[in-house]
Amino acid sequence: MSLSEFSLINKFFNVTSSAAQPALLGIGDDCAVVDVPKGYQLAISTDTLVEGTHFLASSDPQYLGHKALAVNLSDLAAMGATPAWVTLALTIPNVDERWLASFSHAFLALANKYSMQLIGGDTTQGPLSITVTVMGLLPADKRLTRSGAQCGDGVYVTGKIGGAGLGLLLAKGNKAEQDNEDLLSYLRPEPQVELAEVLLNIASACIDVSDGLAADLSHILKASGVGATISHAALPVTDGVRDYCQQSGDWQFPYSSGDDYQLCFTVPKTLEKKLGQLVAAANISRIGEIEESLGLRVQAENGEAVIINKGFEHFKGVM
Amino acid sequence: MSLSEFSLINKFFNVTSSAAQPALLGIGDDCAVVDVPKGYQLAISTDTLVEGTHFLASSDPQYLGHKALAVNLSDLAAMGATPAWVTLALTIPNVDERWLASFSHAFLALANKYSMQLIGGDTTQGPLSITVTVMGLLPADKRLTRSGAQCGDGVYVTGKIGGAGLGLLLAKGNKAEQDNEDLLSYLRPEPQVELAEVLLNIASACIDVSDGLAADLSHILKASGVGATISHAALPVTDGVRDYCQQSGDWQFPYSSGDDYQLCFTVPKTLEKKLGQLVAAANISRIGEIEESLGLRVQAENGEAVIINKGFEHFKGVM
Repeated sequence: MSLSEFSLINKFFNVTSSAAQPALLGIGDDCAVVDVPKGYQLAISTDTLVEGTHFLASSDPQYLGHKALAVNLSDLAAMGATPAWVTLALTIPNVDERWLASFSHAFLALANKYSMQLIGGDTTQGPLSITVTVMGLLPADKRLTRSGAQCGDGVYVTGKIGGAGLGLLLAKGNKAEQDNEDLLSYLRPEPQVELAEVLLNIASACIDVSDGLAADLSHILKASGVGATISHAALPVTDGVRDYCQQSGDWQFPYSSGDDYQLCFTVPKTLEKKLGQLVAAANISRIGEIEESLGLRVQAENGEAVIINKGFEHFKGVM
Repeated sequence: MSLSEFSLINKFFNVTSSAAQPALLGIGDDCAVVDVPKGYQLAISTDTLVEGTHFLASSDPQYLGHKALAVNLSDLAAMGATPAWVTLALTIPNVDERWLASFSHAFLALANKYSMQLIGGDTTQGPLSITVTVMGLLPADKRLTRSGAQCGDGVYVTGKIGGAGLGLLLAKGNKAEQDNEDLLSYLRPEPQVELAEVLLNIASACIDVSDGLAADLSHILKASGVGATISHAALPVTDGVRDYCQQSGDWQFPYSSGDDYQLCFTVPKTLEKKLGQLVAAANISRIGEIEESLGLRVQAENGEAVIINKGFEHFKGVM
């Protein structure tokens, strides 16, 4: 059975859902048309997942559909924006209706969770690749950038760090149980959308941890013109990551592994108490402090300060 | 030499240009942030070009860079929107600096022509593929959809039809001179941006001709609940297409070949005179009229009315 592009979109993606900001014109014309509410600005981000680069061949479409949107929602969260609209450019090698049903179900379930509307896209034939563009709303002139960190600010992360990196190793080795928490945090990351809306009024700088904590926190430090020392003992990791670090002897692993999609953010001293009142202690960890001295230092468990500056690079080893 | 994603973007795409609507936050953070001016709405479109599906392997990057943006600008034009911002998701097999320099130069030159700003994107490693998302501005509650055509409206096209389809045949056969007009309209289509802004106040329906005139006009007819008869004698074609149709005996070729990126639009009888005053006759052709009787009919040169209903399908022949 052959499906045209039009019927593909209609069959799998043109669903009515409860959008918080319904588009004036959605899927089905040359463009979508939306109205940005008065007093708001628009945050936009685009991310691509390519088979073989960002996910393993034969990945389960229910995880891919979720993850393709989740990694983009994570960028909106890092800006403190509330999700509103999304477009999906899906390139697939052939029309596999079971694959499409599973992918679209997961994608739309996550969109629906945040009352987002899928307003357009493109389906094309080619090697499997997914590009998602998300649009979110920000109250006028409020946003979380990378450049606002100041000396004395506390450095925080959400959730646990390094789990997705270990999950990737487990997925490659095909070694883990399906419900292994590290494997799931790699396959099915949960963007920190709700927390981001709180942080918009508290954090001085924010980024999402996609390329590895060391690389991403370094972006904040560089953009803000500051440095930081973080305490290794304060870094939140899963039991799996703790065991892996011990067994492999690679204690720096959670700093350099990517794909966590947690947030790393800084908070002025004067607002740290308020943060503690608004966000449950179980969801965030204070891992260090912003300092004048440039660079990122990690206070290792033996007391030594180690400079760490590596992360996931998309073109590592290409040339 | 190995370039990271960050330096790739900085080196080739992070240029300052004369944007009509400068973003509040451009490339370099987790999201871009833009302000939609008061009294305007936002039109959004996404299109992907994949090597082997939308362009031939080893295509010249100076044409690809132009075309990837042009096909998206064509969607904005079909909605009557004025280009404002663009994101680029570029997947490349390896870091070829000459290729990137040529691609980015052409992409940014076209963006600059329309005072658009490149506000974000993603560069990833994988099979060559380009996804562009464009955003344009529309005066509040004004837009050109596919659904406004009414009986008696004139049916128009811009430019010439079928040339890009012939250009593709020429490119495949490697037969044409580099300045052949059909080859160039395939390799380097010019979106009808300026004209679209005029049409916003005149046309009752509009679409861009990407999948073939018959398929695209049929979208207008279906969305509007009407039919049309067009006169083959009135169809504007290049000398090359006229010769090809005669030699091949396939007179329907310009109706079914894709990639023209001209506009097809309808105009109420009462506004046709105004259209003639605002748009040079050389740039548009009246090819037929909207009728109550559903479907698309072409009055062939022998006087016979022929039903044509085919076009370019992205998944044709896949399964």
